[in-house]
Amino acid sequence: MNPLQVGLVQQTCGADRNVNLEKSSRGIREAVALGAQLVVLQELHAGLYFCQVEETDCFDQAETIPGPSTEFFGALARELGVVIVTSLFERRATGLYHNTAVVIESDGSIAGKYRKMHIPDDPGYYEKFYFTPGDLGFTPISTSVGRLGVLVCWDQWYPEAARLMAMAGAEVLIYPTAIGWDPNDDTEEQKRQIDAWMTVQRGHAVANGLPVVAVNRVGYEAAPSGGPGSLFWGSSFVAGCQGELLARLAADREEVRIVTLDRLRSEEIRRIWPFLRDRRIDAYADLLKRFCD
Amino acid sequence: MNPLQVGLVQQTCGADRNVNLEKSSRGIREAVALGAQLVVLQELHAGLYFCQVEETDCFDQAETIPGPSTEFFGALARELGVVIVTSLFERRATGLYHNTAVVIESDGSIAGKYRKMHIPDDPGYYEKFYFTPGDLGFTPISTSVGRLGVLVCWDQWYPEAARLMAMAGAEVLIYPTAIGWDPNDDTEEQKRQIDAWMTVQRGHAVANGLPVVAVNRVGYEAAPSGGPGSLFWGSSFVAGCQGELLARLAADREEVRIVTLDRLRSEEIRRIWPFLRDRRIDAYADLLKRFCD
Repeated sequence: MNPLQVGLVQQTCGADRNVNLEKSSRGIREAVALGAQLVVLQELHAGLYFCQVEETDCFDQAETIPGPSTEFFGALARELGVVIVTSLFERRATGLYHNTAVVIESDGSIAGKYRKMHIPDDPGYYEKFYFTPGDLGFTPISTSVGRLGVLVCWDQWYPEAARLMAMAGAEVLIYPTAIGWDPNDDTEEQKRQIDAWMTVQRGHAVANGLPVVAVNRVGYEAAPSGGPGSLFWGSSFVAGCQGELLARLAADREEVRIVTLDRLRSEEIRRIWPFLRDRRIDAYADLLKRFCD
Repeated sequence: MNPLQVGLVQQTCGADRNVNLEKSSRGIREAVALGAQLVVLQELHAGLYFCQVEETDCFDQAETIPGPSTEFFGALARELGVVIVTSLFERRATGLYHNTAVVIESDGSIAGKYRKMHIPDDPGYYEKFYFTPGDLGFTPISTSVGRLGVLVCWDQWYPEAARLMAMAGAEVLIYPTAIGWDPNDDTEEQKRQIDAWMTVQRGHAVANGLPVVAVNRVGYEAAPSGGPGSLFWGSSFVAGCQGELLARLAADREEVRIVTLDRLRSEEIRRIWPFLRDRRIDAYADLLKRFCD
């Protein structure tokens, strides 16, 4: 079980679903050839990031679980003997959709799913129109390579989500993501944003003594509405249990990488930094409020 | 009210209380001469870091509030017209002690106090022997320069503390601190530790859209028991509302610095990153548990 080889597949996406899936498939094969036991794909890797606009036709892209994506990646996982973290637009019922990560076991079965709990909505990221907030809570998914604390994109800004996954026994935090710059932002602001994004997630690693794996979309996608579009910043990364950067992928191109995680490190770090011991659970009640006013 | 000039006084401490207080006083005067409206001192700045051992005589160093320290810094605050964040070993009653930050208003009065909520205990940092965990909760202290979210040292590893201060209306997070390396740790481990310490606090800035001010002790203090002692790593810093580093002081010497905080930045950042809007307070109940098992 130790060490664990994790593969990251960072890719561009286009309008053709089959091309995107084949690209993911090639990335997974490449990662497995390099030794990956677990491969993580980025958020909504089967298509363009359609949330740049609010358009009812986009709901046609949603699929059931099980469904075409879980069949496709299930067959691949079984063939290669690898655990895969996928992300898809879930159709749960007529008019009820989620942004869902599905973990496929190495025998091709569905190990579990996580429905994105925190849903963003800001210019170019109109997710509240499409995705019902998740109702499965913050529950790690048990697999043959460990208990995976899978969260999705906007969740990564919330220390609460990371803590709850850690408290529920997650051994690694995993974030499929699609985040980019507004190309109109100046270079300084772009740098602050990407640094903030890495810092807050590395902070979750520190606060919880867990490794973090974030896999982000890369490449420019034009806005159907003629707006500035999104320049997805790639820069997928892996941090160790003290938040130290173990790998950082390119910002401007597709990349497949494998990273070695020392699964015993969490035990060592939580012994020298026993944060879980000292949480003041008698004084945290206000965390369940919206604001203290 | 905008901008706010914050002074940081990072110092070494010795066994002579008066020498330490005079050094703090000179630092405050220097910061005010540079334009500081608010000056932050490090944790337990009146003495050596006595928690390297468990020794009942050390309780003699504790003092009441009001008491000698609040008199001393009260007179200085009134003379200079500056708000000061001090830190002291509080004697609350016979056998009842706290690690307490006291905020002095610019008229010399006590604006409020914060009793350290999370108490560490690890080799060389035997704080659980000395300090009763705080019972004042996470309450910002209102002053003429704004609502200060004052926390202390070990609190800085807890996202819960930062979040609760933000939710209670803090406009800046402030951490007087005394943290150092075990001189026996290798260089790589020392680097991971100081990076983790900065990262997790910069993460609080990001998650809450607030600036963070951390003022840390500096210099080597031998262990009375003959152990390795502690090499306090200084490196006091200020981060902006996106976690960006605005200032970082020396790791190996005393330093006084003032840093300009843009008090309007929090409003801007929380508009583009409205994390408070999307917290899943319906799904956070387990944060009040010790662990989910």
